[in-house]
Amino acid sequence: THTDPAAFAHADPAAFALADPAAGSRTAGAAPFPQRAAARDAGPRNPPAAAPERGNLTVGAAKAGALLDRQLTLARTRAHSTALQALGSSRFHAIADKVAVLASEVPLAKTAGTTDLRPLATAAQDRLADAVTALPLVVAGHPYNSAALVHGLSPDTVPHPQDAPWHQVRLLLRLHRYAREAVSGPKGNAVVDLRLLAAGQALNRHRDASEASAAAAQAARTPRIAPATAYALGVLHADQRHEVEAARFAFQQAWQKETVGAS
Amino acid sequence: THTDPAAFAHADPAAFALADPAAGSRTAGAAPFPQRAAARDAGPRNPPAAAPERGNLTVGAAKAGALLDRQLTLARTRAHSTALQALGSSRFHAIADKVAVLASEVPLAKTAGTTDLRPLATAAQDRLADAVTALPLVVAGHPYNSAALVHGLSPDTVPHPQDAPWHQVRLLLRLHRYAREAVSGPKGNAVVDLRLLAAGQALNRHRDASEASAAAAQAARTPRIAPATAYALGVLHADQRHEVEAARFAFQQAWQKETVGAS
Repeated sequence: THTDPAAFAHADPAAFALADPAAGSRTAGAAPFPQRAAARDAGPRNPPAAAPERGNLTVGAAKAGALLDRQLTLARTRAHSTALQALGSSRFHAIADKVAVLASEVPLAKTAGTTDLRPLATAAQDRLADAVTALPLVVAGHPYNSAALVHGLSPDTVPHPQDAPWHQVRLLLRLHRYAREAVSGPKGNAVVDLRLLAAGQALNRHRDASEASAAAAQAARTPRIAPATAYALGVLHADQRHEVEAARFAFQQAWQKETVGAS
Repeated sequence: THTDPAAFAHADPAAFALADPAAGSRTAGAAPFPQRAAARDAGPRNPPAAAPERGNLTVGAAKAGALLDRQLTLARTRAHSTALQALGSSRFHAIADKVAVLASEVPLAKTAGTTDLRPLATAAQDRLADAVTALPLVVAGHPYNSAALVHGLSPDTVPHPQDAPWHQVRLLLRLHRYAREAVSGPKGNAVVDLRLLAAGQALNRHRDASEASAAAAQAARTPRIAPATAYALGVLHADQRHEVEAARFAFQQAWQKETVGAS
């Protein structure tokens, strides 16, 4: 009943590789983060004309893309190795055995069949509501409030502290969604589910942009980079902080609809 | 009847000096442009807490501020000298004499008293309406469309071509406002005037941000600057391009109200 770590070990590393930073993106700064570019394509822009503009990338932008590619690939490779070591350990094998046994012989408590799940689901909803109430949603609801870049040039190497409550809400929102599914079944309240999905997607964008801006700031601290590279990383950092702001705005809009629909 | 150029020559240069880039601004990137920070203060932000955050400015941001201060002060000094030379020229004196004579003996045509100004005012309004129709207002009306940063890392040294139509509308809007005042008197249609003023202020913000972003990009081309300085200039450039986007959004909102109110 062992799972085979080799199946993970021989996965094609190219499948994890970053997209070519110079390919198919019009905003040079956003290039290494294709997910964001794709999200923006849903907006009111004209169809992309990537080919003629690709040549406009400055040397600095190309170097910045290569630098980020190198640093993020290194981080991914390290994480990959760590995961492989964990998968090959005897501790993981013991857990895999245990899970396989649990799947066939679920150790249910005697009251499990009659336990009402709804209070637990309500508790998850309350925790989410409390966390959302603590968010600065009034500011987030004003377009172009530029709150996300307030600490733009802070020398701190830690991630932006102002992002943490939003990351927390992202986790609580997912818990709430799972709890709803457990209580009402996968097809219950489909319309409201779509709204929760929109809010969750906005918070996923928020996390991605937050990490992208941190990666750009981190890369800019690399010693002996060219000024043009640092300039491009600065543009990328500010652009991703504005994407953080945009994601908060999108969440506020989605959440507003949710509240109106539920009342 | 000569105007005295000396009155200009001895104006206090300090009155023109740029504000201290490190003083009283929370967004480090926006520091050298206090007008923008002031405009943002009207928004939903918390009251400024400048003192504790000022120490967070990186060396790069401080250097970038000093570099911009130096370059913009040099440009201002040059313009000042050029203006002084023009004011001291015999050609300017001749014009000043002519203007003084015109003020006392206006050479009105015989039909001037009965000419209907309204067709001329309507023509100014039509030119404005045509120019606004050509603007990408649908895109501008979507918050966070990120259209202004599309050419963010273009190596062109010329100002962004996409800004030109907006600058043109700014001039036409001012002409239209003057024409309205000439036709209806300074107190006519005060409510709609406020809306035109809001649209005009948005376009002033647009021009300021456009020039600020160009100044940051230009400063980043200074040879042998430190990477940290270039990074800060990149953040400033992207931030000001987003301010361009924000100003377009504000104009679209103001103009929308104007059209609804007039119909």
